[in-house]
Amino acid sequence: MTGRDKGADIAPLGPSPIIILVRPQLAENIGSVARAMGNGGLFHLRLVAPRDGWPQQRAWRSASGADRILEEAEVFETVDEAIADLHHVMATCPRPRHIIKSVMTARGGACELHSIINRGLKAGILFGPERSGLDNEDMARADSWIRYPLNPDFMSLNLSQAVMIMAYEWWMQNEMTPIKTFVTNETHVATKGELENFMAHLIRELDKSGFLRNEQKKPGMVRNLRHFFQRGEVTEQELRTLHGVVAELAKMGQSS
Amino acid sequence: MTGRDKGADIAPLGPSPIIILVRPQLAENIGSVARAMGNGGLFHLRLVAPRDGWPQQRAWRSASGADRILEEAEVFETVDEAIADLHHVMATCPRPRHIIKSVMTARGGACELHSIINRGLKAGILFGPERSGLDNEDMARADSWIRYPLNPDFMSLNLSQAVMIMAYEWWMQNEMTPIKTFVTNETHVATKGELENFMAHLIRELDKSGFLRNEQKKPGMVRNLRHFFQRGEVTEQELRTLHGVVAELAKMGQSS
Repeated sequence: MTGRDKGADIAPLGPSPIIILVRPQLAENIGSVARAMGNGGLFHLRLVAPRDGWPQQRAWRSASGADRILEEAEVFETVDEAIADLHHVMATCPRPRHIIKSVMTARGGACELHSIINRGLKAGILFGPERSGLDNEDMARADSWIRYPLNPDFMSLNLSQAVMIMAYEWWMQNEMTPIKTFVTNETHVATKGELENFMAHLIRELDKSGFLRNEQKKPGMVRNLRHFFQRGEVTEQELRTLHGVVAELAKMGQSS
Repeated sequence: MTGRDKGADIAPLGPSPIIILVRPQLAENIGSVARAMGNGGLFHLRLVAPRDGWPQQRAWRSASGADRILEEAEVFETVDEAIADLHHVMATCPRPRHIIKSVMTARGGACELHSIINRGLKAGILFGPERSGLDNEDMARADSWIRYPLNPDFMSLNLSQAVMIMAYEWWMQNEMTPIKTFVTNETHVATKGELENFMAHLIRELDKSGFLRNEQKKPGMVRNLRHFFQRGEVTEQELRTLHGVVAELAKMGQSS
């Protein structure tokens, strides 16, 4: 991750599934959807019969720079037209319905989408209108459904949040960032020798100050200090600062 | 997942991390954050110096029923006050900074938060103001940072989307839903015997119709039909419908 942030310039990283908004109501939501798509590396947007027509300036205002996705959005009158050139269609389905169908989590869906796209096929995901969701005819056009595992007591999901979760899972499938790293920038994690060097300095000064005068308790006290200083990784740069802190405090002690 | 949807009634499912919005600007965003929290099973919201004061009616309008989270939100003047009773603090950090710190993905952070909470400790996650993000003093209060792996060319993430991803990953850590299932409702996946029974019916009628009259090609044609009907799981109910379709078409063929 490079931290670049040039929304106006976002471009497809390769083939990706098409996000199809069916009868979306609010242009603001279409813009927020485009922003979420850009975040997760999805670039192809189709709109089926947007309620207030298209284009709508309000969409650009809420897209925060994901303009290219909106400019290249394709508009269709029906779901059938919007999916005619696709090989595989998934539909988001917030509630269980009494129909026989494969149902996947967002993670499972993202995994399958990568596999479909990697075979050179075109895939799309249907998202329904804000209030009502997809109707039964729309749902019957899908090969499989995606239902997010979320709090069953509060499933009401904003349209752009629903797209965000899919886009995030799409991105995560190819993400190699380790789940935990330690950023040290110009310095490095201290070696045990560097740490020992600091511990020796600290103990020497504590000895001088009389803090470790109880010879019987001294080994345990030193061990406790070691446990503290070894708890997390410490960098060479931080050890230099700590050397300075010890030296400074020791000097102050001498002059008082 | 039960499909219940009673936002007014959402209640904590157990201890969970506290979402801390630092100097949030727009009340609408605070409401959207509450909604995203409810979706992912997070219930504790703290606000540090909200720009327009608190409470704000506009927050309730965008919360879509996550009212209880807003009603129980606690307001503080400083980050230090907001985190004083916590044992562990994470901070979301959209861009790399030149500081020595543990950095986790959203998934890694959610995993660690479960482990911290399960030890009976209190944890919180800091989210910065919409435009500027957390400042350096805020970031220095955190034990570790969370940086989402997302499209590096378009990292601009809406505040409630950022909370949504954390809430989603928090929920997913304990989620047992298989990534792919096949919903059959009242019927069941057909046994091979039931499928064979249908194939026999189909072949019998095709034989009568003359479709399989080329004895040399017949075994291959039958195998191809078998491959098609076995591609996905088929249910007993669907086989009954297909029996009906075959019988009806055969009857039509006889009468013509």
